[in-house]
Amino acid sequence: MSDTSRNIPDQRYGERLAACREAIVERGFAALFVGAGPDLRYLTGFVGEPMERLTLLVVPREGPASFVVPHLEAQKAGTTALVAGGHAEVVSFEETDDAAAVVAGLLSPRRPVSGEAARQQIGLSDRLWAIHVLQLQAALPDRRFEPASVVMRDLRQVKDADEARLLARAAQAADRTMDGITAGRLVGRTEAEVSLEIRRRLLDEGHDLADFAIVGSGPNGASPHHDASERVIAAGEPIVLDLGGTLAGYVSDTTRTVWVAGDAGIQPEAEFRHAYDLVREAQAQATAAVTPGVPAEAIDAAARAVIAAGGYGEFFTHRVGHGIGLEVHEDPYMVAGNATPLRPGMAFSVEPGISLPGRWGVRLENIVLCTADGATVLNRSSLDLRVVHG
Amino acid sequence: MSDTSRNIPDQRYGERLAACREAIVERGFAALFVGAGPDLRYLTGFVGEPMERLTLLVVPREGPASFVVPHLEAQKAGTTALVAGGHAEVVSFEETDDAAAVVAGLLSPRRPVSGEAARQQIGLSDRLWAIHVLQLQAALPDRRFEPASVVMRDLRQVKDADEARLLARAAQAADRTMDGITAGRLVGRTEAEVSLEIRRRLLDEGHDLADFAIVGSGPNGASPHHDASERVIAAGEPIVLDLGGTLAGYVSDTTRTVWVAGDAGIQPEAEFRHAYDLVREAQAQATAAVTPGVPAEAIDAAARAVIAAGGYGEFFTHRVGHGIGLEVHEDPYMVAGNATPLRPGMAFSVEPGISLPGRWGVRLENIVLCTADGATVLNRSSLDLRVVHG
Repeated sequence: MSDTSRNIPDQRYGERLAACREAIVERGFAALFVGAGPDLRYLTGFVGEPMERLTLLVVPREGPASFVVPHLEAQKAGTTALVAGGHAEVVSFEETDDAAAVVAGLLSPRRPVSGEAARQQIGLSDRLWAIHVLQLQAALPDRRFEPASVVMRDLRQVKDADEARLLARAAQAADRTMDGITAGRLVGRTEAEVSLEIRRRLLDEGHDLADFAIVGSGPNGASPHHDASERVIAAGEPIVLDLGGTLAGYVSDTTRTVWVAGDAGIQPEAEFRHAYDLVREAQAQATAAVTPGVPAEAIDAAARAVIAAGGYGEFFTHRVGHGIGLEVHEDPYMVAGNATPLRPGMAFSVEPGISLPGRWGVRLENIVLCTADGATVLNRSSLDLRVVHG
Repeated sequence: MSDTSRNIPDQRYGERLAACREAIVERGFAALFVGAGPDLRYLTGFVGEPMERLTLLVVPREGPASFVVPHLEAQKAGTTALVAGGHAEVVSFEETDDAAAVVAGLLSPRRPVSGEAARQQIGLSDRLWAIHVLQLQAALPDRRFEPASVVMRDLRQVKDADEARLLARAAQAADRTMDGITAGRLVGRTEAEVSLEIRRRLLDEGHDLADFAIVGSGPNGASPHHDASERVIAAGEPIVLDLGGTLAGYVSDTTRTVWVAGDAGIQPEAEFRHAYDLVREAQAQATAAVTPGVPAEAIDAAARAVIAAGGYGEFFTHRVGHGIGLEVHEDPYMVAGNATPLRPGMAFSVEPGISLPGRWGVRLENIVLCTADGATVLNRSSLDLRVVHG
């Protein structure tokens, strides 16, 4: 869970902060407030979840960056690559201190902030909790607050070679999990039991955290964000398996749809086979459309065209993909209306699906990396329909 | 991960919403906006993490509650106990819709909100992400936003019998994990390896999620929120093990400090034994102080008095405890300045510690439940110093 194994070279964090500060100036922010979460990990190497105690990297447009942490996180914050590299100083507060006041004090005129900048807006990291947002807004009533994502998005959505390597490692650990779970017995077990086995396998295959293990059998497969229930898996129905975890900070996310034939060998019904073939073709077409310069929405459109032509357009109700990295969903999103041109280093899911309410669902998901030559598919497990007897 | 096993009876959710609405009126809110997370799970039974797509229960002071969800969560939202019980209606939006505008529309004059209420404040759940806060503030520029925790805290901090039972189950699963990991080999392994084994054991013992597994060996034990590093555990040093997970939504959290003697049988140094005894006595005194009507800060003071009298007051740098339930840290906090009187049903950690920077730490943590007769300790594993040879 810690990044002390230094999967990202230490000097990278200083470079990222420098790029962040350039973007802050360019966007006219007075400062960025980055709370615990993926933005903070990206900038500092700090691994930790948001808490009721404020943890906040304050990056002013000029002057030193401050890493504001509760006293009991001070030692940990001090060992992050950003602080150890001399790019930020730790400012710790005690249990009974007002953390928002500490942050406001860092922006006071005692610090070298130009008069103009002092009136400009402050960027808040996307995941900062409302309780902290409201306290910071109250402590800084003259500031205007805007999403920091206009800055962080541009930094984070293009992965460097180290990040791409970690995403590939996570993807392959997820592939082994998928191959393992579909090689075993499924029929007669509850979705929840299968989900637990998936989470155990995610850890066994090298993930630090087993984040999700969706098991949507029969009609539950038609609800894309169904988790796993006490429903018992029967022979003669499909299961949507959508699983992923975090490995050295980077997330895996893959989906396969299997048909459970059972000992009786009940083969897939014709409409299911047809839908499966359409989804597989949509997945292939969307992947083939990935190349630098193409707008993100074109990837969505490529998949949608196949499924619509097959007559199932109304049953493909979600965007075809999301960026992935330190977060399971992040920029860029492959969705209608997103004209962001793809760039080499962007990593995202391609996951078309058909959901027939009350019956079943089909979804196939790979993570792909945009390169100068098109898509590199990070998942290696087969997209062939798996008919499992167990 | 799902609550379809109905560990909390369905009718409870309607009762919780009714109590919530009473508090909304009492506090003068126009509405509560409750995003994905523990507050939402408490009110609806919905299990899901916050996402870039908005998921928001809108509870106006009068009129029906609305569960605003992205289309692909609509089926799942519809099966929650609150919606199935007829207490809220699902309002879904498409991928390219403006979710904040959908929410704002629910509060427009078309809905039966009195003129006075329309100008009153809106409560935001503590964990709602900044990106959503800023979008909702922009969509409702005439509203004032306040933390919803003034309402949710009073509802959630007193556990009912079902919640107490789930907390006890989670605590005992954590105890078995602790006993298992300390019975095995520790010396010569990295903290990260031990941490992974803890997370596997948390799942094996019945947790749905293995949330954290802090392994602080030697000097790392002096950093209370250290995770786990590549440091190799040596003979002749202590390890702070602080672990927990989520079981049917409820969180476990327990800490023990063990001494690793190794094959050479290096016994604990005198100062460590002394510090251990002090922390154990502080833990006992704080637990003994738990009784209805006592202010939360008195529990902190009871532990602090013991450690201060022993001469280590400056090395006990954190509050003695935090409430626990659907969140690992929640109200009530056992901290100086919190005069909240304890009530039967409140559940919280009692975890005094001594941290000697650069040397080692000692911490002992149990979850206790306040009852009419004092504290019921939910953790059952021994507080005796464990001297492990392996």
